[in-house]
Formats: sequence, structure tokens, C-alpha cells
Amino acid sequence: MAIRVGENNYGKQRVRILQVARHPDRHEIKELTLGIRLEGDFESAHTKGDNRKVLPTDTMKNTVYALAKLYPIKSPEDFCVLLADHFLSRNLQVSRARIEAAETLWTRFAVAGKPHPFTFTGSSNEKRTAALSATREEKTLQAGIEGLVVLKTTESAFENFLKDEYTTLKEDRNRILATSIRANWLYREPAVEFDSTWHAVRQTLLEVFAGHDSESLQHTLYEMGEGVLLKFAGIREIRLSLPNKHYNLIDMSAFNMENPKEIFLPTDEPHGLIEATVRND
Amino acid sequence: MAIRVGENNYGKQRVRILQVARHPDRHEIKELTLGIRLEGDFESAHTKGDNRKVLPTDTMKNTVYALAKLYPIKSPEDFCVLLADHFLSRNLQVSRARIEAAETLWTRFAVAGKPHPFTFTGSSNEKRTAALSATREEKTLQAGIEGLVVLKTTESAFENFLKDEYTTLKEDRNRILATSIRANWLYREPAVEFDSTWHAVRQTLLEVFAGHDSESLQHTLYEMGEGVLLKFAGIREIRLSLPNKHYNLIDMSAFNMENPKEIFLPTDEPHGLIEATVRND
Amino acid sequence: MAIRVGENNYGKQRVRILQVARHPDRHEIKELTLGIRLEGDFESAHTKGDNRKVLPTDTMKNTVYALAKLYPIKSPEDFCVLLADHFLSRNLQVSRARIEAAETLWTRFAVAGKPHPFTFTGSSNEKRTAALSATREEKTLQAGIEGLVVLKTTESAFENFLKDEYTTLKEDRNRILATSIRANWLYREPAVEFDSTWHAVRQTLLEVFAGHDSESLQHTLYEMGEGVLLKFAGIREIRLSLPNKHYNLIDMSAFNMENPKEIFLPTDEPHGLIEATVRND
Amino acid sequence: MAIRVGENNYGKQRVRILQVARHPDRHEIKELTLGIRLEGDFESAHTKGDNRKVLPTDTMKNTVYALAKLYPIKSPEDFCVLLADHFLSRNLQVSRARIEAAETLWTRFAVAGKPHPFTFTGSSNEKRTAALSATREEKTLQAGIEGLVVLKTTESAFENFLKDEYTTLKEDRNRILATSIRANWLYREPAVEFDSTWHAVRQTLLEVFAGHDSESLQHTLYEMGEGVLLKFAGIREIRLSLPNKHYNLIDMSAFNMENPKEIFLPTDEPHGLIEATVRND
Repeated sequence: MAIRVGENNYGKQRVRILQVARHPDRHEIKELTLGIRLEGDFESAHTKGDNRKVLPTDTMKNTVYALAKLYPIKSPEDFCVLLADHFLSRNLQVSRARIEAAETLWTRFAVAGKPHPFTFTGSSNEKRTAALSATREEKTLQAGIEGLVVLKTTESAFENFLKDEYTTLKEDRNRILATSIRANWLYREPAVEFDSTWHAVRQTLLEVFAGHDSESLQHTLYEMGEGVLLKFAGIREIRLSLPNKHYNLIDMSAFNMENPKEIFLPTDEPHGLIEATVRND
Repeated sequence: MAIRVGENNYGKQRVRILQVARHPDRHEIKELTLGIRLEGDFESAHTKGDNRKVLPTDTMKNTVYALAKLYPIKSPEDFCVLLADHFLSRNLQVSRARIEAAETLWTRFAVAGKPHPFTFTGSSNEKRTAALSATREEKTLQAGIEGLVVLKTTESAFENFLKDEYTTLKEDRNRILATSIRANWLYREPAVEFDSTWHAVRQTLLEVFAGHDSESLQHTLYEMGEGVLLKFAGIREIRLSLPNKHYNLIDMSAFNMENPKEIFLPTDEPHGLIEATVRND
Repeated sequence: MAIRVGENNYGKQRVRILQVARHPDRHEIKELTLGIRLEGDFESAHTKGDNRKVLPTDTMKNTVYALAKLYPIKSPEDFCVLLADHFLSRNLQVSRARIEAAETLWTRFAVAGKPHPFTFTGSSNEKRTAALSATREEKTLQAGIEGLVVLKTTESAFENFLKDEYTTLKEDRNRILATSIRANWLYREPAVEFDSTWHAVRQTLLEVFAGHDSESLQHTLYEMGEGVLLKFAGIREIRLSLPNKHYNLIDMSAFNMENPKEIFLPTDEPHGLIEATVRND
Repeated sequence: MAIRVGENNYGKQRVRILQVARHPDRHEIKELTLGIRLEGDFESAHTKGDNRKVLPTDTMKNTVYALAKLYPIKSPEDFCVLLADHFLSRNLQVSRARIEAAETLWTRFAVAGKPHPFTFTGSSNEKRTAALSATREEKTLQAGIEGLVVLKTTESAFENFLKDEYTTLKEDRNRILATSIRANWLYREPAVEFDSTWHAVRQTLLEVFAGHDSESLQHTLYEMGEGVLLKFAGIREIRLSLPNKHYNLIDMSAFNMENPKEIFLPTDEPHGLIEATVRND
């Protein structure tokens, strides 16, 4: 028997920055939270405590600050590429860099319909995300969304499902459907208009959710994925992870009241979870 | 010495409901999380384990469900009043009911600018709140906001402050100002157009924040409060609790780079906290 | 009508420190999170943006660091007093200082029963707390506990309660009782052996919870409070805030199974909440 | 181009149970939170909205309740196997079941050193975990720990590391080392004394952390993994994911104070993250 190090990586998580671009007529802001993981020739660091090839995670943090100063952040996707190229080109001991970015979404405030030059609101849980896995030979870049919460009050059913002795769920032709969309999609080519595509994918996901007559959350997930792939030829595949945020109809029969789909109990747990990748080969 | 029960209350927290109104042309939804606290003649429950005057907290939860079924929820404020009246009118042992409501804010989804009849998005952390303290003689009703995050990139300073031997903060004529607004305001009269007033107060708070040339968060807080009181004569006072969400300018001198107010470090802790009530007597 | 500033305070929240005492035979650690709020003559800061009396919250943070360096932290209570005295003695514009401390609890690790000199484990959510409200004339000091979770599987009942048309809860002679204890107690005199008293109060609360035959959480709360007051003459009053963390018996009749108090559903929401002060006058 | 469903699974998350065993002399409790994911022949559910092969996630939840009633839970590992066997043996359309369990750790309360028969405390964030991936042909079972927080005040260094123009971190022969251990280990054989092994692995991880003279968190991670593999021949590999919970020495030179490793700033973000699998082939 021989004990040895297997897959390993190290890096810095939750590196935060706000970049301000001070244009004459308006300011632009970009807030990102970054995660960096490096893989490579780090066996002796583990087994011998030899740090000579270990770039400190504190330096990774400083590198984020410096690159954000040197270059305007066009998009989370572009900034991930910038960071990966930096670490790979200067560190021969690194074989793979994985960079994740989550953008905190700020909305320009408007007074009487007029955009304010330097004030923003930002109460949303939704994040725009990017994830890059890069070696010196190839890059896999994913764009994504997290925490986009959506609910519809009709055109959702769940019927004709499999039953066994522990099944108590009633068939339902008209239920509430709610989820928090987590989506990640893979671009065929690295050169994409990341910003406009991201917004268009987001809108497509929402429009399919709204317009689709759902037989299940699985059914809705597939239609959302298919909708994106039909519209964006440059996207090879999309992975959707959709919690079923159950809004359960409250049974009021115990106090002699009917409840014809009016009052529902929002619940956090337990919750269903439907996950699938939809591909366009 | 004599041991006895002092101030006490009991109730149910985190009672959640979604009310759906199914109009022919569109559905409306209202999602609330409620807290109920009752005060009254409950000494024997504490000291003797005598439950005869104790309405179960489970019944309070059911009461929320039933009243939501019986009455359309016009506003969080109105629903608080409905609940307090219910408990006070039927429970002589109860001397005071305190009801809190937090509304989860849903936005109607739009396709090509057209409002969708039954689909909503809801990723915001912001809550619309109401808090009522009611006896059989009088009611104190507060409306409010929680988690309204706002940031401005200029027209904010902090200068000429008091210094002692532990002061290292530099004077700053042009800093980022960011906060998460928590506001509670007290109406003079119970009969107010709660919905339209809430939206107008919210917009006023944001407009003052954006338009005001800030000398400190204290200064901004007061102007926000004054702005609301000047505009809404029916509001007697407003309390604002404003965390100073520091965005610290990153010092890049160690790697020979200047940072002329471009790259900032968003931080969660430690944070300043400024709280004040502004009154209109 | 005249608009003016009412009650107000400002300060720094979530100021964190770890103090290490390096004794020859063993190290001791103390980790605190502090909140500081000052009240006083700050009207012109609000209304005029005049900061000349405003000690920056950043300086308050530095003061915590400096005082922790200058003095060994005997207890959270003592450190609150130290901080309040510091701010009150040097800032005539301050009329009241309110200091809150929450101690992160670390446990010395033991190898084969032998205490390790410098390794600690610390996975607990429980906090030891202290809260001081101080003027130049008087101090009100409270010690406390937060997040002490406890559960008993028997000797808990809830029966003979008030019923109305919305009551569906069944009487229960033998239920699970679980709560997360939040307690704050007030000392008559400032000179108390804070550490040993804190541990003894904590143990008393748990022993009463365990040993008491409960007719309701109200009943248990009172006995816990009374138990502390009977044992510690130096404590004038204790306030307990006890969420009823419901473990609901799961009804398995739909799949023809009985469940004689064996399988329960742990729930977070909704939850009961029982709050009372017990006094010894 | 052809659009099709790729990897997919569905199931129920955050299914919670408490099992009480009422022995004559003492009660035992077991609290678990479960996640279930099924893979299989579900393409028509996605593409056609055909639910005939879809066992509702609500039924999965009920199945957890029922099996917990039918069988005493010996360990999280055993309960995962029970659930996977149940779903695979009755659902031909399912090809793989992935079950995750997290145990909420309760400690029996003691009065004067004597274990109480039915009272437990449970304030820990630490979880005991198990994860099973099972087909009809093979099972991969992992046991684990999450949230085991540990800190040492000396015998930790980080020196001789790689430096570039963004490196500002100082070499440190004597720093604080703190982490929150997440470990998952793979058993060679399914028949293991899961309970005693779990406790022994946990103690080994802590003892190595305490006793090891650390040159880096990578170094410590490897020694922890090696320590477990040397002691437990039945464990094939262990994966450790260790955030570096930085306690940064506070620089007090600005107010003319030295800080010889006494006062540190606990931080949550950014944080290092070191991950590796250690194998015994």
C-alpha cells in the first residue's frame, strides 16, 4: 500500500471588488465576488511542507485588485479569462486555473424616469455568474444565473404520476409553480457578446417559464433549456438546477371552510429539486 | 424577596401565507410572513401551568389562514389591524396584541413590455413591513421598509470629525456611500391610503439619498427623514436605521499602483450603524 | 409644525477580536464580537452635517483593538465596562454608551483526556453575551446566553388550553419540547464573579429544563427563571425568550402505519415564541 | 443539430426526521436531514410531460418517514443504504440513487456527571454526513464530517513561498491556524462499524491537527489525510476541504502600540481554500 496525494487544488474564495468608472456624464459600477482555484505541481507542498512553488492565496487576492485597476471589467466572463491567463502565463507549476465570478446586480436609480448619474439600488439576491476552467491548451467557459426567483399561479399541473403505498400526493391540474432558477450554459466559441447574450438568455428563460403549459417541473426545465438552445446557436448546452419551491394549498376543512386555490402555504423545506443538462449537438 | 412574572408575551412567529386573487384578466398575489404576540392575564400559565386562558399559538396560525381566506388582503397594514381586532375582540384575557407583517415583494413579469397575467419574479431581499401594537383603547400602527440597498459613488463626504490617539481614518471629500435602508414611520391617523403612501415614501427616501450632498450618514439620515415628513403631513415620525456598508478604497501603493477612487473593497463587517427618529410635532 | 431629531445613536457593529494569552504551559484565547452605540449631543451632525463632535466609528473599532491590547479580557462583562468608561470619560458630548459583546465559545481540545496547550474546537452556535447601558451616573449590566439548544423527549405536556373555531391542535400529555434558550439577567451589583456565575446560571437553566415536568413552555420558562433567582441572590431579574421549536408527530395513517411517538418532523417555521421577565424584588 | 436531454436527476432535498427510541432506562434520538436524487429513464418526462414513470418527490419524503418508522436508524450510512435499496428494488426505471444524510449532533445532558435519561443539548454546527451513490450493481459509500471548527495558536508557519510583484504577505514562522474541517472518506468494504469508525476518524483528524508542526494548510491537510489512512486500513481515500479561516494580526503601529501576536482580527472573507484527496492504493 502506498499513500499519496490525488486530485488537489488551492486558492482564494470570496474575493470582492467594486470597480467604478467615472465618466463625465455618468458613473458605471461593477461589483464582483471571485473564487480562484489552481491545480498543478503542488505535491511537495502537501507531503514535505515545501512552499517554494506556492503562490500565496493572499497574492491571488492582490492580483484581482491589480487587474481590476489595470483593465476595465467588460463582463464577469472576460474578467475570468483575464485572471486565468495571468496565473497560467506566469506560473509554470500551475496546470489548470478555475475561476468563478458572481456579479452583484445593481440597478441605476431613476428620478421621474430619468436615469440618475451615480445612484444605484441593489436589493436583489439574483447573481450573474461565470465559471472558467482553463489550461494552457483549452478553456471551458460557462455563463450563468443564480437565484432568479419566479412564480406562476396557473398553467402548471402534475398528474398521472407513478404511485406506490407511500404516495399521498393528489393529482393537480392547476397548481402554483415556483422556483429559483440556477442556469449555466456553455459557449461553443469564446468570442461572444457576453452582456447582450446574458440578458437575452435570462429573458428567454423567463418567457418560456411564463408561456409554457407545464406538466411538471421536469417538463418546464426541458422547455426552458430547449428555448435557449433554439434561440442561441452559439450555446452548446445548458444545465438547469430548479428547486421546486412548494406553495401548498392549505386544507381548511377542519374549520369548515373551503379553499378553492386561494390561500397557500409557502415552504422552504422539504423541497423538490430537478436538474438536467439540455444539449445541442 | 418575592419572585414574580413581569412583562410577558407569547405568540407565533414566521406564519407564512400566499393569497391569490384570480381575476378574469389577471391574477394578483400577496405573500406575507406574520408574527403575533399577545399580552394579558397569563400569570397562572407561567406559575401554575394552567393553560385555560392560553389560546394555542397553533390556533393563531390557523387564524391567519382563515382570515386570509375570508378577506382580501388590501395591505400588510390592514391585515395587521384585522388580526389584532380578531384576537382582542374574542379574548378578554388579552390586553394587547402586537402584530408584525413582512411582505415578500413580487414583480409582475412583462413580455415585450406587456404585463403577464399570472407570472411574477421575486428575487428581492427588500421587504415591505407593518407593525401594530393594539389594545382595546388605542392602536399604534407603523409602516416600513427593510433591506432597501442603495449606493452612490459621489456627493458623499466625511470630514472635520473628532480625532483622538486611535483615529486613523482619513478625511474624505468624495467617498462611496452605501446603506441598506430600514425605515419605520408612524401615521397620525389610521385611515391612510397605505399602498400609495408606502410607494411614495420609498421613492422619497431614494430621491433624497440620491440628490442630497452628504456630509455624513447622519446628515443623510436626517435629510431623508425630513424629506418624508415635509411631504407627508399624515406621518408623525419616522425612524431610520442605516448600516454604513463600507466600500473601502484599496491601497495599491505596495505594488506601485495608484488607485484614484476606482477599485473598492466591499465589506460586511465591521460596519457603522446610524439610527435616529425624526419627528414632526 | 416643527421637524426635529428625536432619539438617536450611532456606532460600530460586528467589531471582532481574538485575544491570545501565551502562558508558559498553555495558551488562552478569547474571541468577541462587539457592538458600540453612543448617544449624546449629535443634533448638529444630523441637521447641519457638522462632524466636529463625531468620533468616527472607525476610531471606535480601533479603540476596541487598543484596549484589548492594553488589558487582558477577564470577561465579556468586564470588557463592556472598560469600553463604556473609555468613551464616556473622554467624550463629553456622549451621554450614554451602550456596549454589546458576544463571545464565540472555544473548547480546549483534549488528547486522551489531557488538555492540549494550544488547540481549541469551536463549532457551537451558542454565544455568551453581555450588554451594558452606561451613563456617567449609572450602569445597567446584563449577562446572557444565546442559541443554547435543548430538547427533551418526555415530561412535557400541553393540555386544557383555550379552544375556538380555528383550534385544531390536539391535547398532548407527552410531547417533545425543544427550544433555543436566549436569556439575559440583570445583576444587582456590578461586582460579581462573572465567569463562574455565568457557568452556574447556564447549568441551572439546563437542569430546570431537564428536571421540570412541563405543562407548557410558559410553565417551563417561569420555572427556569425562578430556579435562577432562587439560587443567585445577586440577580435581580432574568428575561427569557424561548422559541418553541416544534417537533411534530408525523401522521402515517395514510399509509396504514401507526406512529406511537417515534418519528417526528423537525420544523423551523412557523414557531411559537414565549417571552417573559421573572423578577426578584 | 439535435436538442436532447443529457445528464439529469430529480428528487427531494431537506427531508428532516427525528427518530426517538424509548428504552426503559433512557431515550435515544437520531435527527437526520436527507437528500434524495434519482437517475434513470426520465426522458419522456422532460420532453413530453409524461409523468407515468415519475415517482413524486412527495412520495420520497413519505418513504423516508415510513422507513424510519419501520427500522431503527443504526447510522446515517446504514439509512442511506436502506433508502437506496428501497428505491432501486421497486423502481425499474431508476438506474441510480444518490442519497445524502446529515446528522444533527445531540449531546446527552448530564447532571452532576450523571447522564440524563431524556434531555439533550444540541448547539453545534458540526454535522456527521454520509453520501451514497448506488446502482443495482455497485455502491459507493462515503462517510464524512462538516463544520468541525478548530484553531491552534502556535506550531503553524507559512514561509519560503513564491513571490511576485503583487505579493505583500509577510513570511510568518508562528501564525494562528484555523479551519472548518470538511472531510469525506471512502470505505473499501460496505461492512464497517460505522459509528465507532466515524468517532475514531474524527479524533484522529483533530489529534493530527493539534500535534502536527504545520508549514502550510496544505501540509496539515496531507498529514491529516495520511494519519487517517495509516490508522484505518478499511478507508481507501479521504478528501479534505479546508478553508483557511484567517486570523490576521492587527497592525497597531499607527497608534504607537506593538502587537506581539496578541490581538488578531477574525475574518470570514476572503478566505483561502485548500482541497485534496489523499489515497491509499
